[in-house]
Amino acid sequence: MTSSTAFDPPTFADIESAARRLDGKAVRTPLLESPLLNERIGGRLLIKAEPLQRTGSFKFRGAYNRISRLDAGQIEGGVVAFSSGNHAQGVAAAAHAMGAPATIVMPSDAPAIKVDNTRAWGAEVVLYDRYREDRDAVAQALVEERGATLVPPFDHPLIIAGQGTVGLEIAEQADAADAKLDAVLSPCGGGGLISGCALALAERSPGTQVYAVEPEGFDDTTRSLVEGSRQNALDGAKSFCDALLAKTPGVLTFSINQKLLAGGLVVSDSEVAQAMAMALMYLKLVAEPGGATALAAALSGKFDCRGKTVAVVVSGGNVDPATFAKALSS
Amino acid sequence: MTSSTAFDPPTFADIESAARRLDGKAVRTPLLESPLLNERIGGRLLIKAEPLQRTGSFKFRGAYNRISRLDAGQIEGGVVAFSSGNHAQGVAAAAHAMGAPATIVMPSDAPAIKVDNTRAWGAEVVLYDRYREDRDAVAQALVEERGATLVPPFDHPLIIAGQGTVGLEIAEQADAADAKLDAVLSPCGGGGLISGCALALAERSPGTQVYAVEPEGFDDTTRSLVEGSRQNALDGAKSFCDALLAKTPGVLTFSINQKLLAGGLVVSDSEVAQAMAMALMYLKLVAEPGGATALAAALSGKFDCRGKTVAVVVSGGNVDPATFAKALSS
Repeated sequence: MTSSTAFDPPTFADIESAARRLDGKAVRTPLLESPLLNERIGGRLLIKAEPLQRTGSFKFRGAYNRISRLDAGQIEGGVVAFSSGNHAQGVAAAAHAMGAPATIVMPSDAPAIKVDNTRAWGAEVVLYDRYREDRDAVAQALVEERGATLVPPFDHPLIIAGQGTVGLEIAEQADAADAKLDAVLSPCGGGGLISGCALALAERSPGTQVYAVEPEGFDDTTRSLVEGSRQNALDGAKSFCDALLAKTPGVLTFSINQKLLAGGLVVSDSEVAQAMAMALMYLKLVAEPGGATALAAALSGKFDCRGKTVAVVVSGGNVDPATFAKALSS
Repeated sequence: MTSSTAFDPPTFADIESAARRLDGKAVRTPLLESPLLNERIGGRLLIKAEPLQRTGSFKFRGAYNRISRLDAGQIEGGVVAFSSGNHAQGVAAAAHAMGAPATIVMPSDAPAIKVDNTRAWGAEVVLYDRYREDRDAVAQALVEERGATLVPPFDHPLIIAGQGTVGLEIAEQADAADAKLDAVLSPCGGGGLISGCALALAERSPGTQVYAVEPEGFDDTTRSLVEGSRQNALDGAKSFCDALLAKTPGVLTFSINQKLLAGGLVVSDSEVAQAMAMALMYLKLVAEPGGATALAAALSGKFDCRGKTVAVVVSGGNVDPATFAKALSS
């Protein structure tokens, strides 16, 4: 296994440590179930409802796990992050909880709700042009200028361990619901959430197959798993799943995913929009496009749920009302 | 206190009994909180999320509490109910759980999602014309013809006690969140939910003021509280809050509400639509129009939440995607 990061992958003990740290800080989100939806798909579907997480997505988990381990001097220096929006809000809220100043580098075309909420958590937002500027360079300059700590969106052991608490909770909640999980499906961007979940499930639910679900054109993890090496997203690809537009799997996340995932699945924007409507009708849950890819795989038949018990992560719900209304009408 | 029903009002012990019966059958729905929403209103808002209840509204609670107490012969004879939709689904699901045949009398203009889901729970649906036919007469004929038991929508002690478990859970969950409740606001149609909640809160949170929130034109409980006697909704009134179109407070429910409520509040359809959008943005929760009246009162300032801790019941989320999209765009 090759790796160019300075870090070793997290272990299951790191996820347990993150869970203790997040206790009382993050929401233990419910694992929802709809008998009518089960009947419709001919299997048993359990939905991990991360839109109900603090800041409306799972991202608070990793951000808080990272930021809460900074020392007093680092807290004073503040944190910097780059993000299309959900990591931005997670970092802003975690920094707010820890009393650390936060500066967030966001693309100028990020959904308004994500920019507004990041500011509402007290963070300074620096906008950049997604097509002309290099966000890493913008963020790095801020880090040096301010003596701040960068909180990366996925490729860091504390971030992965924090997101892995989603998988830990799924295993515990499935046990409590007398459900033996055949599979877990999760949205995948850079791979922090899915790799953390896979680590947790490998320990707590070892027979369960874990799949990454990506939007068409941004299936870099799916193709990387097939090729056995990190592949890029397609040039010029477009998707309304704004949370999942990472171009390449992380080094650390892919090293985990390569060992632990059963595979990747790819869904279209129209399958995602249908899943958003089904989440409204059957679960009363607001799912954002990028948050609904795994549900789309289960409902479209891309993953065959018949006769199986499947947990699906809905990873976020930060969607503008207008975008949501448009998805429902499509 | 005058009453023309054959029943005495339920007691707090009846609500505790209902809670034991519903344990493991109904969902203990979360009490959601959004720090950003709190900041926006300048108070602390706790949202009881009944859209996440089995069948998408609180109605399953009362229906199951009633139907699960029928004897074997009554179960075999089946149940009949009339409802615009949420009580229909609650009765259908509770009857399904108990193995009782269910026949539901629904208005022909009920939202498609409510009719479809009622049928999906295995109930027979009999449609009637809201403006030309008397639903009580249609239901009564079915009861006699089939030897079935009528499950009334609100004016029955077992129904009120079942809905009262919402109030019991609010009191318990507020305690767990270190919240001392100044007020509880709940949507009000016939008054089953609010009267049950008021009974529970009078015992478990006696300093808390409880308010019924109704749509404009259907403010029969609000005006009844002012007049001291049961008043009717306005003739020809229209509202998109299809769950709250009861014309008159129940006899039993009003006898409780008259003693225990602090008052009634009235909201417009446009205030309700705004509350639905805010529930999407801040809570990631799908609220139906009738489910969002109490939230609308808190967010519009009709009830002044500044400096207060207020629990709001969002009572249901059964809304067609098209209606939801339209409300978001209004």
